[in-house]
Amino acid sequence: MAYAVVGKSVRRVDAIAKVTGQAKYTDDFSERDMLVGKILHSPYAHAIIKTIDVSKAKALPGVEAVLTYKDLPGNQYSTALPGVIGDVLEEEEERVKFGTAGHPYSLDPNHRDKEDRHILTKKARFVGDAIAAVVATDELIAEEALRLIDVEYEVLEALTSTDAALKDGAPLIHEDSPRNILASGGFARGDVEEAFKESDHVIEGEYETSIVQHCHMENQTSYAYLDADRRIVIVTSTQIPQIVRRIVAQALGISWGRVRVIKPYVGGGFGNKQDVCIEPLNAAMTLAVGGRPVKLELSREEGMIDTRTRHAFKFKIKTGINQDGVINGIHISAVSNTGAYASHGHSIAGSAGGKFRYLYPAKALKYDPITVYTNLPVAGAMRGYGTPQIFFAFESHIEDIAKKLNMDPIELRRKNLVEVGYVEPLSKNKIMSCGIRECIDKGRELIKWDEKKTLYKEQSGVKRRGVGMACFSYASGTYPVALEVAGARLVLNQDGSVQLQLGATEIGQGSDTVFAQMVAEVLGLPMDMVHVVSSQDTDVSPFDTGSYASRQTYVSGMAVEKAAREVKEKILEFAHRMTDIPAHLLDLSNQSVVFKHSGESVLTVEEVAMQSYYDRILAKPITSDVSNNARINAMPFGVTFAEVEVDTQTGKIEILEIYNVHDSGKIVNPQLAEGQVHGGVSMGIGYALSEQLLFDEVTGKPLNNNLLDYKLPTIMDTPDIGVAFVEAEDPTGPFGVKSLGEPPVISPAPAIRNAVLDATGVAFNRLPMNPQRVFERFKEAGLI
Amino acid sequence: MAYAVVGKSVRRVDAIAKVTGQAKYTDDFSERDMLVGKILHSPYAHAIIKTIDVSKAKALPGVEAVLTYKDLPGNQYSTALPGVIGDVLEEEEERVKFGTAGHPYSLDPNHRDKEDRHILTKKARFVGDAIAAVVATDELIAEEALRLIDVEYEVLEALTSTDAALKDGAPLIHEDSPRNILASGGFARGDVEEAFKESDHVIEGEYETSIVQHCHMENQTSYAYLDADRRIVIVTSTQIPQIVRRIVAQALGISWGRVRVIKPYVGGGFGNKQDVCIEPLNAAMTLAVGGRPVKLELSREEGMIDTRTRHAFKFKIKTGINQDGVINGIHISAVSNTGAYASHGHSIAGSAGGKFRYLYPAKALKYDPITVYTNLPVAGAMRGYGTPQIFFAFESHIEDIAKKLNMDPIELRRKNLVEVGYVEPLSKNKIMSCGIRECIDKGRELIKWDEKKTLYKEQSGVKRRGVGMACFSYASGTYPVALEVAGARLVLNQDGSVQLQLGATEIGQGSDTVFAQMVAEVLGLPMDMVHVVSSQDTDVSPFDTGSYASRQTYVSGMAVEKAAREVKEKILEFAHRMTDIPAHLLDLSNQSVVFKHSGESVLTVEEVAMQSYYDRILAKPITSDVSNNARINAMPFGVTFAEVEVDTQTGKIEILEIYNVHDSGKIVNPQLAEGQVHGGVSMGIGYALSEQLLFDEVTGKPLNNNLLDYKLPTIMDTPDIGVAFVEAEDPTGPFGVKSLGEPPVISPAPAIRNAVLDATGVAFNRLPMNPQRVFERFKEAGLI
Repeated sequence: MAYAVVGKSVRRVDAIAKVTGQAKYTDDFSERDMLVGKILHSPYAHAIIKTIDVSKAKALPGVEAVLTYKDLPGNQYSTALPGVIGDVLEEEEERVKFGTAGHPYSLDPNHRDKEDRHILTKKARFVGDAIAAVVATDELIAEEALRLIDVEYEVLEALTSTDAALKDGAPLIHEDSPRNILASGGFARGDVEEAFKESDHVIEGEYETSIVQHCHMENQTSYAYLDADRRIVIVTSTQIPQIVRRIVAQALGISWGRVRVIKPYVGGGFGNKQDVCIEPLNAAMTLAVGGRPVKLELSREEGMIDTRTRHAFKFKIKTGINQDGVINGIHISAVSNTGAYASHGHSIAGSAGGKFRYLYPAKALKYDPITVYTNLPVAGAMRGYGTPQIFFAFESHIEDIAKKLNMDPIELRRKNLVEVGYVEPLSKNKIMSCGIRECIDKGRELIKWDEKKTLYKEQSGVKRRGVGMACFSYASGTYPVALEVAGARLVLNQDGSVQLQLGATEIGQGSDTVFAQMVAEVLGLPMDMVHVVSSQDTDVSPFDTGSYASRQTYVSGMAVEKAAREVKEKILEFAHRMTDIPAHLLDLSNQSVVFKHSGESVLTVEEVAMQSYYDRILAKPITSDVSNNARINAMPFGVTFAEVEVDTQTGKIEILEIYNVHDSGKIVNPQLAEGQVHGGVSMGIGYALSEQLLFDEVTGKPLNNNLLDYKLPTIMDTPDIGVAFVEAEDPTGPFGVKSLGEPPVISPAPAIRNAVLDATGVAFNRLPMNPQRVFERFKEAGLI
Repeated sequence: MAYAVVGKSVRRVDAIAKVTGQAKYTDDFSERDMLVGKILHSPYAHAIIKTIDVSKAKALPGVEAVLTYKDLPGNQYSTALPGVIGDVLEEEEERVKFGTAGHPYSLDPNHRDKEDRHILTKKARFVGDAIAAVVATDELIAEEALRLIDVEYEVLEALTSTDAALKDGAPLIHEDSPRNILASGGFARGDVEEAFKESDHVIEGEYETSIVQHCHMENQTSYAYLDADRRIVIVTSTQIPQIVRRIVAQALGISWGRVRVIKPYVGGGFGNKQDVCIEPLNAAMTLAVGGRPVKLELSREEGMIDTRTRHAFKFKIKTGINQDGVINGIHISAVSNTGAYASHGHSIAGSAGGKFRYLYPAKALKYDPITVYTNLPVAGAMRGYGTPQIFFAFESHIEDIAKKLNMDPIELRRKNLVEVGYVEPLSKNKIMSCGIRECIDKGRELIKWDEKKTLYKEQSGVKRRGVGMACFSYASGTYPVALEVAGARLVLNQDGSVQLQLGATEIGQGSDTVFAQMVAEVLGLPMDMVHVVSSQDTDVSPFDTGSYASRQTYVSGMAVEKAAREVKEKILEFAHRMTDIPAHLLDLSNQSVVFKHSGESVLTVEEVAMQSYYDRILAKPITSDVSNNARINAMPFGVTFAEVEVDTQTGKIEILEIYNVHDSGKIVNPQLAEGQVHGGVSMGIGYALSEQLLFDEVTGKPLNNNLLDYKLPTIMDTPDIGVAFVEAEDPTGPFGVKSLGEPPVISPAPAIRNAVLDATGVAFNRLPMNPQRVFERFKEAGLI
């Protein structure tokens, strides 16, 4: 459909704020004389604290408080008012445990995240685990105090891989998780064993992904204080203010309403800020100093190990396929490494399968994931939420099948791709729009696939070129797995402009702009008449669980559209009362109430607004304050096409061209959408070629938790990224949208891997394909 | 009626914030590197700027901008975006004029305030008028720059009294106001001339009040900047954020939605912050420096002349009365001195009569006020809004009549006082509750009136004692004169606590606490479960015109009660869905949903709240966002009884005892109400005995615009103030309330005056009764 504002590349509403530095981030709220919090991290991956002596640290002038597990709240704390810390609890069991995953709360106890954390721990489970904390008048004193804390550890065996964790007799990381398994269990649709029997070929493969980190620009930062109401206020760089509120309250054993969370501008999150990493400790810190403001900011080095990472997965895939290319059954087994604590844990493995199953609706599909604890940093949510892993595996695997069966890999996929109308039997979600075939056509054309396939058929020499592609499916939000409530409030000003308040969080992705476009569209306003309140404050913002699962444009967009339509209805009703023209004959356009049939202006919106404020009888300013429970989902699809040149002597892979083509339904703002894809593809390239958090295999010590040694692609490593959209508008989405936030990161890695295979004939089944590993594989393959 | 929380002296919700210093006032929002604005005030009371040279000031390092009338917006500015100042306008007529009174806007042009101001003026109309302004990097540079501005004035005759302004041939202060009359016209009910003819006695009197100032603790302070949206943001110590928004926009000729106003904690206003004194200039200052933050803070000396004062009035009263004490007719003429600009102007004179007419419903009442411009500081709204003046006059006059007719002054009043059921013919307001007689009985008893009347009958000697009393009537808000729209938003948290957002402004009077009590009452919550958002922000707060006219507990309280009842209804409806028990059988009590008939608990509110947030089907967080148009009014009444000892040699009047007894309907918080009365009586004592802004009669120069020379009563001058309430609950008010904010200031002055008359036989018809004047009058009267 054609719209006036939706679909246009209008300028970001926060562009000037960000360019001029007026946008305030958490650190910009720093107060004078604010105290500083610092964390003592465990130097051991697996160890029990035998004794901990904080007396020297406490005695250091400038130290206001030192906290250990002993000081932190037990269950009896729940009845106390905040303001007092100091229940001494020797036994870990007595103390409140909580989960940190940024999921909507569930009334069903079986549907909640595992509660396996204390704010500070008596047992270190990874190098970096928070053992103690100091609050001091400045950072240098705080750091000096950390050095003065004497800890005697009983060091245990560090389980630095899922294999080690799963071996018989391995020590338990959490006493209540036998064999170090956090959880297992996936799903089955149809009977795969039967399907394999019916198949002409049964082909197997193994694939493995690495641990990577989000590397958002702005580190985890928060500050907390007790307000005059003796409530804990936390200003924090988060994607999920409402969930931070809940989890801090749970962690401290206090009533949820006694916590207030404010989210300023945020410098990126990518899922790492969909976890409640530092706020409970920050809250405990301010309680320990009688409510004075305390700032807790992680350094890059701390953040890379003591926030969250992306789960490394190991996959075994077995596929039954007919000679004609029709897949009968797929069996995927996966082992997911969640590190030392649950965080999002098995949800990631579950979600990977849940999102994969829309792409190829093979009649039999079995998915068997297990999620395993290890003594490594905690894995959690990261852009794609399990799908970059599973699609790397399967899109590599299907390429291998095509090669084995000597089929065209695109044709093979086409034979098995989903079509509109498919109802996924397990989720009951129905595919109401699907542009995956058009995405493939467009990508194929952009990269000149057929031409290059022919050109690169016979190659020799040091540098070899190839093309590859990979597809993906995703979802828009979490329905039906979790609840999708979103809220928006809209106020019509006297001049006909509006303010839009959201619970959904702008974290850099551009959602504020997209929401403003939706409001402008419904109300017939220019963009500069829509003022977005860009900060969330759990005291006053409409309720929304936040930014994750690529839910905002789709799920929160529904609330925004609903709020705008409600305001529109009220404007037309008011205009009717002013003119006696029936409201159903009226519409809004160009800041006016117009006749629907002719577009002729009846009144300006300003005239209606003035009447709504100041009519002696009818005065009632026009607002809407809506909540929307989205009990539906829409599946976006897409494809990456990549062309690479592989230097067989150095192992260096250069991406010559790369295109992501997305069906994300209607694109509200093409320029922002393109930016979203650029970022995602760039992350995907890092995931494919260079990024990996490395650990000493014996001690579990991190080896590259800094931006020098961790090889994030720089702009010099990043090719021009081509972006195209196939706008298969979804009838369920506001204005036909589907999600776009996470999808761009999913398919670049397998597409690049498949291009390398095309160029060299060597299949890489493990990420990243960095020069060292490429070189080793080429030697194994006899290429060099 | 008996309530659980309403009627209890619960602790102020902002008590801890204010005691600990956590409450943030405007100045606490200061930013580093903020620029400072300073004003050049006219040294002449009446003068035209012939030339103004700012070149030296502009050249001073550290000066960022210098503004004069030439730089300020003309009508053509309205289409420009803010961010540019610099239209050079030589002629005053070309420039936008605006009014500053904090009244709700009216759609009827005839009902709007006079627009007679420019942000900076080419013609000075009082000593202190704002001629030019400087923005500089610090205060000292700004002050130095003011001294460098060269102004050549053509000095005109200063009209320093209403007599001077009204005399034939007086120069015009505003060209469009002939005879310097801003406005005239009052009302007439019945025929006074006829009433005089029918009366046994026709008695006349003349009375005069002085110019006083509010002297709120926190001076006028604001700071302004352009936000990233290029909107003007003003943080200001105001009673009326929504009206500041409108008037700043009008003054700059821009769209109202492009201004955002934030009201932090406020340190008192008393009506002076019901006027938009500094914000338009502050906004112009930030525009002049490209949107950088500029702070504009008036010193006490500046504020006492360049904000607002209380109108001095001169009254002539003529009363026709029968021998039995029944008043047939009253004719009051008044001349009100509004100073150099209109501000609230004639509304004050109008309102004085409007509120007076409820107390004694004499069948004939004629009120003839005129409001006159003079070359003195601008008079505006001040606690009581004309009533301290008119009741001083009439309650003195009725005492004089009693004395003249040898009647008991209380009996005389009783014969003429209003009764329940009276419908005031002009306003059509009906008296639905009236405790004035009980107030008199209580006050009489408290002060031991009859005993002292006898005791003090025959006195001689230097020190003489006497008792006096005076009554008043008032209103709750402005209906039917102006619009009374109020808003409130309420959010139910998961734990059953709530947040309350208000448009009504807490300025120290305790309204946040009273509103929280109302919510707690309706929802069956303890006070610490009601969290009040104490700041207003025009972007997100519900619409309410602010704190004035003693409207909040009554008018905004209606919106609060409505919001609470809506939330209650939604909770019960949700509980019904959870239990199938019909909602009408349920009630809320003690944080639970209970059976109405037995009080037995069915569910906790927390259980309902959790379901409202997280039910997979029904999830919809419970909120209310209401607006209320109060098209009704309720009249509070009250009385002061005072006992004085007059030192006939020094002229010093000591108040031995003073009691204010109020019928303000239901008292929501007795302790806060008592505090409100203490403050008002203390102001009334200052008005009676010592306060007066003095000016040189020739030049109009202020003589005592500082807190040393202006004799505000200190705690040493203030007796113990006795307070009692007669709670004649009004059926129209939420929980039966009527207003209490302004009333306490109205009757102390005439009661003290009548006590002095009782003690000495000398009638003082002019305020203040300071030792100098007392001494002079006693000499005139032959007493000394």
